[in-house]
Amino acid sequence: MINQDTIVALATPAGAGAIAIIRLSGKKAIAIADTCFKSVKSNKHLSNQHTHTIHLGHIVDGLKTIDEVLVSVFKNPNSYTGEDVVEVSCHGSNYIQQEIIQLFLRKGCRMASAGEFTLRAFLNGKLDLSQAEAVADLIASDNEASHQVAMQQMRGGFSSEIAKLREELLNFASLIELELDFAEEDVEFADRTQFKELTERISFVLKRLIDSFAVGNVIKNGIPVAIVGEPNVGKSTLLNVLLNEERAIVSDIAGTTRDTIEDEISIGGIGFRFIDTAGIRETQDVVESIGIKKTFEKIDQAQVVVYLFDALESSTSEEMLKNLIVEIEKIKNKYPQKPLIIIANKVDKLNEVETHNLKSQIKEVELLSAKTGLGVESLKEKLLSFVNTGALRNNDTIITNTRHYDSLLKALDEIKKVKHGLESGLSGDLLAIDIRQALYYFGEITGEITNDDLLGNIFANFCIGK
Amino acid sequence: MINQDTIVALATPAGAGAIAIIRLSGKKAIAIADTCFKSVKSNKHLSNQHTHTIHLGHIVDGLKTIDEVLVSVFKNPNSYTGEDVVEVSCHGSNYIQQEIIQLFLRKGCRMASAGEFTLRAFLNGKLDLSQAEAVADLIASDNEASHQVAMQQMRGGFSSEIAKLREELLNFASLIELELDFAEEDVEFADRTQFKELTERISFVLKRLIDSFAVGNVIKNGIPVAIVGEPNVGKSTLLNVLLNEERAIVSDIAGTTRDTIEDEISIGGIGFRFIDTAGIRETQDVVESIGIKKTFEKIDQAQVVVYLFDALESSTSEEMLKNLIVEIEKIKNKYPQKPLIIIANKVDKLNEVETHNLKSQIKEVELLSAKTGLGVESLKEKLLSFVNTGALRNNDTIITNTRHYDSLLKALDEIKKVKHGLESGLSGDLLAIDIRQALYYFGEITGEITNDDLLGNIFANFCIGK
Repeated sequence: MINQDTIVALATPAGAGAIAIIRLSGKKAIAIADTCFKSVKSNKHLSNQHTHTIHLGHIVDGLKTIDEVLVSVFKNPNSYTGEDVVEVSCHGSNYIQQEIIQLFLRKGCRMASAGEFTLRAFLNGKLDLSQAEAVADLIASDNEASHQVAMQQMRGGFSSEIAKLREELLNFASLIELELDFAEEDVEFADRTQFKELTERISFVLKRLIDSFAVGNVIKNGIPVAIVGEPNVGKSTLLNVLLNEERAIVSDIAGTTRDTIEDEISIGGIGFRFIDTAGIRETQDVVESIGIKKTFEKIDQAQVVVYLFDALESSTSEEMLKNLIVEIEKIKNKYPQKPLIIIANKVDKLNEVETHNLKSQIKEVELLSAKTGLGVESLKEKLLSFVNTGALRNNDTIITNTRHYDSLLKALDEIKKVKHGLESGLSGDLLAIDIRQALYYFGEITGEITNDDLLGNIFANFCIGK
Repeated sequence: MINQDTIVALATPAGAGAIAIIRLSGKKAIAIADTCFKSVKSNKHLSNQHTHTIHLGHIVDGLKTIDEVLVSVFKNPNSYTGEDVVEVSCHGSNYIQQEIIQLFLRKGCRMASAGEFTLRAFLNGKLDLSQAEAVADLIASDNEASHQVAMQQMRGGFSSEIAKLREELLNFASLIELELDFAEEDVEFADRTQFKELTERISFVLKRLIDSFAVGNVIKNGIPVAIVGEPNVGKSTLLNVLLNEERAIVSDIAGTTRDTIEDEISIGGIGFRFIDTAGIRETQDVVESIGIKKTFEKIDQAQVVVYLFDALESSTSEEMLKNLIVEIEKIKNKYPQKPLIIIANKVDKLNEVETHNLKSQIKEVELLSAKTGLGVESLKEKLLSFVNTGALRNNDTIITNTRHYDSLLKALDEIKKVKHGLESGLSGDLLAIDIRQALYYFGEITGEITNDDLLGNIFANFCIGK
């Protein structure tokens, strides 16, 4: 099923930058590049060059020079895709990028589809399926935790764990199958006690992997946190304070867009996605307020709720404080299971008596001054306490991919059947069926067992150029 | 003045993509990269590698693996900057980019300032100043014309033209200076007639270059076109039709942003920046309308005005047509020098008699149907007719840079003085002063004569990483 076309795509982010990389892969990659490349040295041809070498010259379209470029040559199988690969490093103007890609298309390349370079790497055995999936995760990783998990998976940590289980299971499976060949003699090559132990061990590992999906999901997608609070209680100041350290790093590196980071703030290496809400104050005035409905919708999606209010306001007005307590109760009643952090902001404006009074009225209140930084560290710790980062610290394999999760669940189901079969003295041929099915699900994860639909789904989520 | 630090920066556009390139340049570039690079082959060190080679391995920070990367090594003087250069091709996640750059900073690199790589290339004699400036123009080029001009300049077309003039002038200058050494003998080494011819020739070339700035400016910045018209007369449909071909190409290449192109439409390789205005209809109602004021402000900035109206509306209402003619007259009176294109859109809805009537009422009207495409080509030709693209077609050197323009003007002034001095029989020592001054301005363009302020100004406009 591997496609023989030579494919081309922009491999660097779209937009103008100092340089851009255009990547070609396929049988004719070097030959096609050669037709448009004029080395600064006369009579130098890319096809005569060693793998992993770089060449200075111009991309020319007939008499027209499109750009001065560096061309990197990778010869199969020593390339990302396992095919011949050419990378053209050109000046990063949109116009030049387009002209060069158009030229390669005219010379016989085809636009790569999403993830097609990585798909080819998989099909050529350069990486297994879970490693290929990790490439996309790695590119999407935007904090330490998601990076660590993707990196471990890409380097084969997860695959090797699966492979180990698979091998042990295969070992027993072949003994069982062997027994079937000698069925009439009623021998037992596979020690049933050892086999039961193995199924227990496999179940244990599978359960741990399956359980890790909860934290894996958090790591991959971030933890949605709804901030409930009226305007002017300091929501954006709080976000800025939380973002502070990160932003200092970010602004050092030119061009890093701030927008994407302002939504998602990395705390202790974990991404928290803060969702701004309009608060639920209006309830007393309007029965069916759209604003409140929306706030509740956002709370529904969130995993943690932060309720933020102005400490000074609530201390100066008895009425305000009462409303506050009503609102907090309302959230607690509606979401009894959802972690709720209640924060009094601007506490730097309170005196000791007022602070004491506030604390006595709202027991679980956290005191914060986004302005002075008081309470910020404690808030971070509180947010982190909702994440089970133990697995991360122990460098355990963590599952972040729904597809893997599904396959593991199915594999566990089969292993349970095997274990049950062993306990009830099921015959070898019936045991073998369940074992084979479990092996099938392991194979699905690493891609030993696959089909076009599955591959299509996986690689459609990649960006073009990867 | 060349800085000895090793600098680092992201060279590809910010944001997530398949891959990103981080570039190091300086004496320690290879040594610093070596401290963080672990080859897939044991005992392989970057410092032992040949120039223009690529190496697979990992970027590691102590025990932590940041990414699997390809590292390209360029050894001085065979690199972009003329120094040792290392390019790290990593997975294009923001997080990974930041981690790797931070790591290099800790290992002794410094963040590159804007354009510092190209500044170093200039200081190391890899390119002259006008070529260095062309690098930024090339990256910013977004249509065929601006690309062609930047490319020509980067390849030294402009520099060589200046160098030729300079050499001839130097030749005479040295003869004149020689005369000064023999001042008492009253000899004339420099043939005054030939010299006068030369100054005329230089003046001619300088004037041509100076004149080319008008078209150069248009090419670099695009032609601002104000579209005056009420809502619903089809302004955005017209823009879409003009954009049509370009967009078809653009959308082929994934991720190319459409926004930037929708403002600027490339017609015949020239960029036209269309400025939407609210029209000037309201005049009859309100005396001092802010809307109309703004429209006029936009017309002020534009080089061409397109007046667009609904052909059907104006044909069915006598009143409408009258208003229209009043408005057109108003624009003509206010901007007698500004090219004005009057377009009746939606002519597909008119019958023959109505069309004829419209034409007789407004002589210069262009008939257009953005829907059917009628009149679109003719509009494009009309827009292009306002640009003198002769120089572009003839591959003449075109000046696009204000700094060059200034230096050329000053050089021309000096050459005029020389010519005048020759005509009035000025003594050799006085002639020599003006000649030297002219040579000075030539040197300013190519960077033989320069200073830190000038360099600072030029390279501050570059992006970081270039």
